[in-house]
Amino acid sequence: VILAEPGCTGRINRVQTIGVFGGTGQQGRGLAARLSAAGQRVVLGSRDAARAVAVAERLGRGVRGADNAQCAREADVVIVAVPWAGHQELLTALRPELVGVIVVNCVNPLGFDDRGAYGLSVPEGSACEQAARLLPDSVVVGAFHHVSAELLLDASQSTVDIDVFVVGDDRAATDQVQALADSIPGMRGIYAGRLRTARHIEGLTANLIAINRRYTTRSGLRLTGGQW
Amino acid sequence: VILAEPGCTGRINRVQTIGVFGGTGQQGRGLAARLSAAGQRVVLGSRDAARAVAVAERLGRGVRGADNAQCAREADVVIVAVPWAGHQELLTALRPELVGVIVVNCVNPLGFDDRGAYGLSVPEGSACEQAARLLPDSVVVGAFHHVSAELLLDASQSTVDIDVFVVGDDRAATDQVQALADSIPGMRGIYAGRLRTARHIEGLTANLIAINRRYTTRSGLRLTGGQW
Repeated sequence: VILAEPGCTGRINRVQTIGVFGGTGQQGRGLAARLSAAGQRVVLGSRDAARAVAVAERLGRGVRGADNAQCAREADVVIVAVPWAGHQELLTALRPELVGVIVVNCVNPLGFDDRGAYGLSVPEGSACEQAARLLPDSVVVGAFHHVSAELLLDASQSTVDIDVFVVGDDRAATDQVQALADSIPGMRGIYAGRLRTARHIEGLTANLIAINRRYTTRSGLRLTGGQW
Repeated sequence: VILAEPGCTGRINRVQTIGVFGGTGQQGRGLAARLSAAGQRVVLGSRDAARAVAVAERLGRGVRGADNAQCAREADVVIVAVPWAGHQELLTALRPELVGVIVVNCVNPLGFDDRGAYGLSVPEGSACEQAARLLPDSVVVGAFHHVSAELLLDASQSTVDIDVFVVGDDRAATDQVQALADSIPGMRGIYAGRLRTARHIEGLTANLIAINRRYTTRSGLRLTGGQW
């Protein structure tokens, strides 16, 4: 047990269990696979517990499945990897279970039409800020927005060579989420600003989708210029 | 003279003269220095022609200075590198001179307070979309938003190792702006979506500023995963 820094809520610095909401979707499964391979304890959450258990069994490495509420109760950190359409409802329902939990949001509020992907207008400014409004007793951090699910699930790729932008207002929490990203080989967690800047990170996914379409690739981002 | 593709306005595919509005500022000077070193013909524009001429003479390599209107008349492509506060007024005034010109916008509508930089709300969605509204007879392309002016002006750095996101709705124009970015050693121009996605690119500059502050660096972006 690591002692919490002053100002931290109780559950933040213990040995971690990572819950993944939307854990049966592509992004969720991909993150669960990489995090469990990196030695993290992972619980997949889904509305359908049986489905979460079945997907978890296929992932192996001790990954477990549960319904979302049970997943939230077991987790120190949850990753929200659900479609934008279900974001508000899910977090509203799980507010009691998420008290004191670090909520890592990687939801991209995007629309699609015949000209491609585009950022949707969100009343709170971003999915992260909506999560923070819905979960006043949790610590919301944005991260993992730009990770290609296909790349995460591609077992032939031993590393995930991207930088993960981590945004949030709580330094202990952003540090912890950076460390989580760092635990995946090739990946680096980079602090990239306050939660109010999450909107740009989320929206940039529309640009990466355009890049992937034009160049037929699975693009990721790396920062140049620094000692990270 | 290269024949224009169908649908192109007349001035687009000739041998290029690059005008730089805000050419006496850091970003403008930096881009002018790198583009002229890459063999482009460059004219600095400023409200104050004498100042533009003086700065151009210090840059050397045949760079010339002029007032903004004259700069616009000479240019096939202009780069708008002015502060956001002067964006609307400048483009409104120069609409006649910019008919048929490719207008490359690298303006970032940002605010700053004690918590750092953040994206400002723009009625049109982005500086690029505002430019497109103000200049219906020009072709607006977004590019060069994330290039560190300090790095551009650092003569000890022979290459600028970043990818430049190029956004726009006119394929011939985005191709041409990509080629402009490609002409600077180390730099690559990458098509990154329609003009409506410029808001994310512009806002991301706030995140890069946060990164630069946290890590004491001059960060740039590179894409991974593709054959570019």
